[in-house]
Amino acid sequence: MNDIGKAAIIGGGVIGGGWAARLVHNGIDVAVYDPDPQAERKIAEVMANADRAYAKLTQARPARRGRLSFVASAAAAVADAGFIQESAPERLALKQKLFAEIDAHARPDALVGSSTSGLLPTELQAEMTHPERLLVAHPFNPVYLLPLVELVGGARTSAETVERAKVFYASIGMKPVHVRKEIEAFIGDRMLEALWREALWLVNDDIATAEEIDDVIRYSFGLRWAQMGTFMVYRLAGGEAGMRHFMAQFGPALKWPWTKLMDVPELTDALVDKIAEQSDAQAGDYTIRELERIRDDNLIAIMQALKAQNGGKGWGAGEVLKAYEEKLYKLAQAEAAQRDHDLSQPLRLVETTVQPDWIDYNGHMSESRFLQVFGDAADALFRLIGVDEAYRGRGLSYYTVETHIMHRQEVAGLAPIYATTQVLDADEKRLHIFHRIHHGATDAVLASGEQMLLHVDTGAQRACPAAPEVLAKVEEIRAAQAALPRPEDAGRAIGIGRAA
Amino acid sequence: MNDIGKAAIIGGGVIGGGWAARLVHNGIDVAVYDPDPQAERKIAEVMANADRAYAKLTQARPARRGRLSFVASAAAAVADAGFIQESAPERLALKQKLFAEIDAHARPDALVGSSTSGLLPTELQAEMTHPERLLVAHPFNPVYLLPLVELVGGARTSAETVERAKVFYASIGMKPVHVRKEIEAFIGDRMLEALWREALWLVNDDIATAEEIDDVIRYSFGLRWAQMGTFMVYRLAGGEAGMRHFMAQFGPALKWPWTKLMDVPELTDALVDKIAEQSDAQAGDYTIRELERIRDDNLIAIMQALKAQNGGKGWGAGEVLKAYEEKLYKLAQAEAAQRDHDLSQPLRLVETTVQPDWIDYNGHMSESRFLQVFGDAADALFRLIGVDEAYRGRGLSYYTVETHIMHRQEVAGLAPIYATTQVLDADEKRLHIFHRIHHGATDAVLASGEQMLLHVDTGAQRACPAAPEVLAKVEEIRAAQAALPRPEDAGRAIGIGRAA
Repeated sequence: MNDIGKAAIIGGGVIGGGWAARLVHNGIDVAVYDPDPQAERKIAEVMANADRAYAKLTQARPARRGRLSFVASAAAAVADAGFIQESAPERLALKQKLFAEIDAHARPDALVGSSTSGLLPTELQAEMTHPERLLVAHPFNPVYLLPLVELVGGARTSAETVERAKVFYASIGMKPVHVRKEIEAFIGDRMLEALWREALWLVNDDIATAEEIDDVIRYSFGLRWAQMGTFMVYRLAGGEAGMRHFMAQFGPALKWPWTKLMDVPELTDALVDKIAEQSDAQAGDYTIRELERIRDDNLIAIMQALKAQNGGKGWGAGEVLKAYEEKLYKLAQAEAAQRDHDLSQPLRLVETTVQPDWIDYNGHMSESRFLQVFGDAADALFRLIGVDEAYRGRGLSYYTVETHIMHRQEVAGLAPIYATTQVLDADEKRLHIFHRIHHGATDAVLASGEQMLLHVDTGAQRACPAAPEVLAKVEEIRAAQAALPRPEDAGRAIGIGRAA
Repeated sequence: MNDIGKAAIIGGGVIGGGWAARLVHNGIDVAVYDPDPQAERKIAEVMANADRAYAKLTQARPARRGRLSFVASAAAAVADAGFIQESAPERLALKQKLFAEIDAHARPDALVGSSTSGLLPTELQAEMTHPERLLVAHPFNPVYLLPLVELVGGARTSAETVERAKVFYASIGMKPVHVRKEIEAFIGDRMLEALWREALWLVNDDIATAEEIDDVIRYSFGLRWAQMGTFMVYRLAGGEAGMRHFMAQFGPALKWPWTKLMDVPELTDALVDKIAEQSDAQAGDYTIRELERIRDDNLIAIMQALKAQNGGKGWGAGEVLKAYEEKLYKLAQAEAAQRDHDLSQPLRLVETTVQPDWIDYNGHMSESRFLQVFGDAADALFRLIGVDEAYRGRGLSYYTVETHIMHRQEVAGLAPIYATTQVLDADEKRLHIFHRIHHGATDAVLASGEQMLLHVDTGAQRACPAAPEVLAKVEEIRAAQAALPRPEDAGRAIGIGRAA
């Protein structure tokens, strides 16, 4: 997956725990050091959210999950780590002390990132012997889902470290943005704080409550900013005349007395009380844990939705997710090619979880989602027989011409399921397969799907024989499975039987 | 749909055009006045985007589309309008003059909204005889998609007007937020401008380019803000200790020298050039029109994704979309109940468009989406025979037990399609139906879907007879369609036929 080997997380909590979760879900072993006696419990809570999230986020998963261990010192954590991420409290002296210890015990070639949201890397690396390997790598909560990581080098950070960091953080599904000059709070937090200060004034002056301000954000520009940032949005507002027109038209408003430029609201007890009470009212009966899971589900759904956009190429966070999945699928395919499947049994090619948005108004997985899983199983079979992106690039593909679905048992949200696929028959143009979806816990058959696929020349849009190497693989599976009993639901026709 | 009757749009352009599009797609006739000779062309461009967007946004559509007309004066536009929205350029004197004309010719009970993003309603209504009916109703671009409208009353706006406005804007799919006190720029634009100013400084100081800043936004907090605003996000950052803990921990940072509090960047020619050039580089080969459509597709996908969240209840903009659809479905159902279907022919119950995210890697509508459309057709048949939310509330429903799909022809993205449904057979517990999906332009059959449905007691999870009124309706359709030829694909079994 990458050449980083083991990872060390220095400082647990929500951010350190989020890093640990992202790493183990990328198959990387992680050693955590945090002096807080509650660290193990805290990280377990983040990990529980992350496990739930990754089951929904993507079916593309590394072959193994990384191991998580807790150690008694920073020195022990970093000893054999190729990647080290520090997420300690935001105190310069504390971080400098930690980096001195890391510096003394880490491999010279280790990549060292700091999660600081405000401190300068030049100050963090001031007392290091190998300062060239340190940079700020500032993530956003939840770290296991949000793609952004701001990379900021200090005066003594090497260019090679920045380049290595770009490659590594991208390899674990993130979007690195290199901040060109070192400034406090970097890019994201500067903008967040500017808006936050204005929001505090609006509450202070009783213009709006916390809930009303949040509604203004999430029903308008929040929807825009999930996919295009402020410059692109204003470019579109400028119309065909573009950005220059927008600047000329709206530039003057910057000098109007709109925002509370000149002042910072005093965080009096009264203001803090007001905000805390409004925030409680806004949260209603939802617990923090429930809200976290709603947030995660929303983020996943948004990223998955963006993955399908822009003519299927993906857009923004969805493009990052798509590239990440494609890389993992290629790895999985390469591994599967080396692995010996037991071809004499129905092939277990898809494992997943019933996602909450697969549920219909009866509270069960909806019909079309069963067919989607059958389609995923057929795709996995295609990869196994060599019908992949390159093969399709030659203008060859299998198309489904006929499907027969039998529903046996309903299944609720979040249930684990897996699909098996049996090759019933084949000739040079046709492939007759039979899928079953099983419950992951009980193995009960939930539904079966029988399919006839036709091999096509996609340019000419007509049937044609599959390539010899594909036919050989199909025949190998068909022959191996010929002794399997024929599924009792195969070859059915639909109708209401009536007494003669 | 609502009691507003006709609508008047004063001032076209992107905002006025967006209002016109939202109104006609809600079945409301619109008269537009704009002295710009280009207004008709400009609105046609917005309307083309909106038509495309609404075809994807929802299948819940009003029975008829509103008519759009252009008139030669504000007086003519408002004469018989129950709702008037002004979107003229942001000059107080111009707007006051327009409101004087509107005031003189509008119905006394008309609701009058101004799209101004900065001017105070008290000033806008200063010279009106009936100032009580005016309020600011500030939307966000694209107006036909984004739900938010900020409602701001002036000193002489009546409380009744604010209440009527909340009901009306919600009825056209929007989320009204009432701004409690009248201030310049209201809520959203204050926050937008605070962040925008900071972004300009970051470009000015060469910390980041326009594209890098936009990436920071859309790969991190933009994804959060599409669903939860800044207060809720920080509540979650505070963990179990909540908002008070967050304020105590991060409050001091407000006084750190992070943001450029004390100054506004000078929009020199050099800065404007720099931003315009960076914006061009960021846009690459995409035209404004392409970017607008990508933006719209992304917004639709995000809102649809959020509609499925929170255990199916919807969240944020998705919750608004869900409520809007449910209202329209109820209306459609009430209308369908009154309308005479020709029951002797296959029932044409679903019309839609192949959505871009329904496309698979072969470039065609994916298999599971065909089944989704068959499911929508079955749902429409259910509504026709009285199997609705209330019926399911009695613990009764039809479940699909078996489906047979035949694919006849591929179909590409954005093609219009419709489904017809034929009742082949039925008894008191079973319903045997046959759907066809046709291309909307050629009427060619793209696929057929044969289904056996079983009527169930959802509590006991076992088959039971349907209610008499449902059976009567089913029997009426079955008898009416008994003379139809049996579909040639009905009753098929899958298999590779081989010479004996």
